[in-house]
Amino acid sequence: MSRKSGLFVSFEGIDGSGKSTQALLLHDALRAEGRDALLTREPGGSPGAEEIRALVLNGDPDRWSATTELLLFTAARRDHVERVIRPALAEGRIVICDRFADSTRAYQGTTRGDLRDTVDKLHDLVIGIEPDLTFLVDMDPETSFARAEARIGSESRFESFGSGLQARLRAIFLDMAKAHPERFEVIDGDHPPEIVASEIRARLAARLEAA
Amino acid sequence: MSRKSGLFVSFEGIDGSGKSTQALLLHDALRAEGRDALLTREPGGSPGAEEIRALVLNGDPDRWSATTELLLFTAARRDHVERVIRPALAEGRIVICDRFADSTRAYQGTTRGDLRDTVDKLHDLVIGIEPDLTFLVDMDPETSFARAEARIGSESRFESFGSGLQARLRAIFLDMAKAHPERFEVIDGDHPPEIVASEIRARLAARLEAA
Repeated sequence: MSRKSGLFVSFEGIDGSGKSTQALLLHDALRAEGRDALLTREPGGSPGAEEIRALVLNGDPDRWSATTELLLFTAARRDHVERVIRPALAEGRIVICDRFADSTRAYQGTTRGDLRDTVDKLHDLVIGIEPDLTFLVDMDPETSFARAEARIGSESRFESFGSGLQARLRAIFLDMAKAHPERFEVIDGDHPPEIVASEIRARLAARLEAA
Repeated sequence: MSRKSGLFVSFEGIDGSGKSTQALLLHDALRAEGRDALLTREPGGSPGAEEIRALVLNGDPDRWSATTELLLFTAARRDHVERVIRPALAEGRIVICDRFADSTRAYQGTTRGDLRDTVDKLHDLVIGIEPDLTFLVDMDPETSFARAEARIGSESRFESFGSGLQARLRAIFLDMAKAHPERFEVIDGDHPPEIVASEIRARLAARLEAA
């Protein structure tokens, strides 16, 4: 499957960073400009991948091991890439994906056993594709926690939000961005959504001009 | 996960070769002798793997690509090995499995695209274990077709049974047996079940004596 002139953009970040909102805002802005943008997400994003997502996320979350779950998510990603992402790129479309392989590298590779090497080998073996551009919406976990608490009105403690986990994930995302500056744009997520969105559009425009 | 004194025995063969019957007969014979045998099967064999089996086998069989399906079956095998096979072997039990990785090598690696290399790499990466002993119940596809027809009373044509496919699968199984004589016992399946069963028990006894 060859690539034509499409552009593959992913959004990454910790829980509550606002990346899903930003993916949607970028999609809508590009459509408003008359660009052919497609918004999708992981895990899921294609009918088959959504079936696998439902299998994994419903029921007891511990009924599969980290490795089995990784294989299931990799199957879902393979389907999503084959059925949605590659065909859209081949048609020259802009694909905007809310989470992609970097989330797997961060979550599975670090929080559930030392699976990072397996993650990488599976990716090379059956996925292959990387985004052309990845927006890392960066945020202090305490800030994202405060936002989530304001939204859902809970009184849950910061620790139960998994503050240690979120801080580790943030560090891993930032490390990946540093290791792959050709692909990552780190965006400060601690501003109103419309400010963050205009920064993202500016960075995208600069990238497209430079290309 | 280490192996203790258990024995891992798989049964392989084309559709209608009688391997499931023979797996059951061996299991029952060993139990009657007071041996601690466990009968299991693939795809499936553990609650999680059976869920994945149901996902793959229900619905439109073409809704996933060969590679996605291979990943799903590999996830199921990983769960089955982790949750059933390795724990039973660690307890010193005899595990009898109706189909294992050789079926994947034969079916996925040959009939649905040239995936054999991916099959092998996935196996090395996330499965690792091989049976100590594999009984290949060998049979001419025309014979197994005649048996199936007698059983279900259909008037389906030999070609619609996939005679070409079955003949290719048979050849691949025989090639694997030739390549791995230390693991395979080829059994002539074209005899009454009790004759085949006693041959299998004799071969197993000879293997155990030689070990």
